[in-house]
Amino acid sequence: MLSKNKIKIIASLKTKKHRNKHALFVVEGKKSVIEFLNSKFELDSLFYTEAFLEMPNNLGQLISANELKKISFLKNPNQILAVFKIPNTKENLKENGLIIALDAIKDPGNLGTIIRLCDWFGASQLVCSKETVDCFNEKAIQASMGSLTRISIIYTDLNNYLQNTKLPVFATTMNGKNIYSEKLPKEAIIVLGNEANGISEQNLTIIQNNISIPKFGKMQQTESLNVATATAILLSEFRR
Amino acid sequence: MLSKNKIKIIASLKTKKHRNKHALFVVEGKKSVIEFLNSKFELDSLFYTEAFLEMPNNLGQLISANELKKISFLKNPNQILAVFKIPNTKENLKENGLIIALDAIKDPGNLGTIIRLCDWFGASQLVCSKETVDCFNEKAIQASMGSLTRISIIYTDLNNYLQNTKLPVFATTMNGKNIYSEKLPKEAIIVLGNEANGISEQNLTIIQNNISIPKFGKMQQTESLNVATATAILLSEFRR
Repeated sequence: MLSKNKIKIIASLKTKKHRNKHALFVVEGKKSVIEFLNSKFELDSLFYTEAFLEMPNNLGQLISANELKKISFLKNPNQILAVFKIPNTKENLKENGLIIALDAIKDPGNLGTIIRLCDWFGASQLVCSKETVDCFNEKAIQASMGSLTRISIIYTDLNNYLQNTKLPVFATTMNGKNIYSEKLPKEAIIVLGNEANGISEQNLTIIQNNISIPKFGKMQQTESLNVATATAILLSEFRR
Repeated sequence: MLSKNKIKIIASLKTKKHRNKHALFVVEGKKSVIEFLNSKFELDSLFYTEAFLEMPNNLGQLISANELKKISFLKNPNQILAVFKIPNTKENLKENGLIIALDAIKDPGNLGTIIRLCDWFGASQLVCSKETVDCFNEKAIQASMGSLTRISIIYTDLNNYLQNTKLPVFATTMNGKNIYSEKLPKEAIIVLGNEANGISEQNLTIIQNNISIPKFGKMQQTESLNVATATAILLSEFRR
């Protein structure tokens, strides 16, 4: 049986405020939970329904489907839910390799997809402005498909970081140079901007390299690419 | 005032069954509604709240925020909602250019993002298997950001289509040839598979060209890319 208090705490983890207060976050679904169990993240508690039979090491607590419904953030709860601890160790900012920097990305699905892309393309660090959505948001965790366990994510003053880095800084802008004909370095910071407003003025002024992804459609109305698909194309071009 | 019957009909358009029964679909938000108003799609009805002041040509009906809430599919309704007619003219299958074919894509957000990518990269036709999610689903329309008005989308027997086309057919598989070193043709069909199961066996057997997007991360657990980000990378490589 789940205690009322436990249900209340887990349900509260939907908000960043309560995640930070309790230093806990929720992971749902078999595949993701197993990836987190096999990672550096420390388990707080684990719950599964009868339908879920292959539990490793007899971890966790058997609960009813009805109880799972009370603590799950999903419309259709997925047999298993785990609560992990938010680590209180600080990651160190790296100064090498390919680094993605996010300027106020607001959609957790976009953030999760970008984390998955960083994992695929070996961009081992993701630097987020403090206005960027929390990476422990349940939708970000779902979209990252376990990649969150392998990518170092830092929230920091992005403007300050970009001003002090020795790496070349790239950003996609409307009038940037054609990405397909530019010589792209192996080590760089690539900045992606907010879904509606792009990169902030403050950050744009200190970015040396403006590039753009050419539009091939005849229609001029097509305004922009989704930020996660733009990240996919940029990482592919820098790595190819 | 909105009649009870009108509210009932619009609310029912959340399901494909009722969209097809009434041959109507819903578009929300100022930017998207204006793109659809300026397209080949025929308007059925238009509703906006007081907050929305710049209505073109005095179209539509002023309703209260409370009424908008009753017909909107969004958590935070966006000032304007329009109902458009689903055209009953059939699009013709094209046999030229770059064509994206979808084998049972289930997530409407992925479909909408792929429609937006087709628009950006000038892939003017999207061929969907009959198991692919409906393009008039409200989440697909939202993610397509108006690009649905510019892309021809056909639902058909995909296996039959791939068997009879004269264009070369490409698909991404785990053991395919490295996409960065292959010579890619200007005209081709690129097949993308279901989010969980990939391309069906039946379709895989008739695809001549297997390509793959190399993984650069050191971690072997990273299993796959999201289907929309894979589409972004493929379209970028075929066009560059």
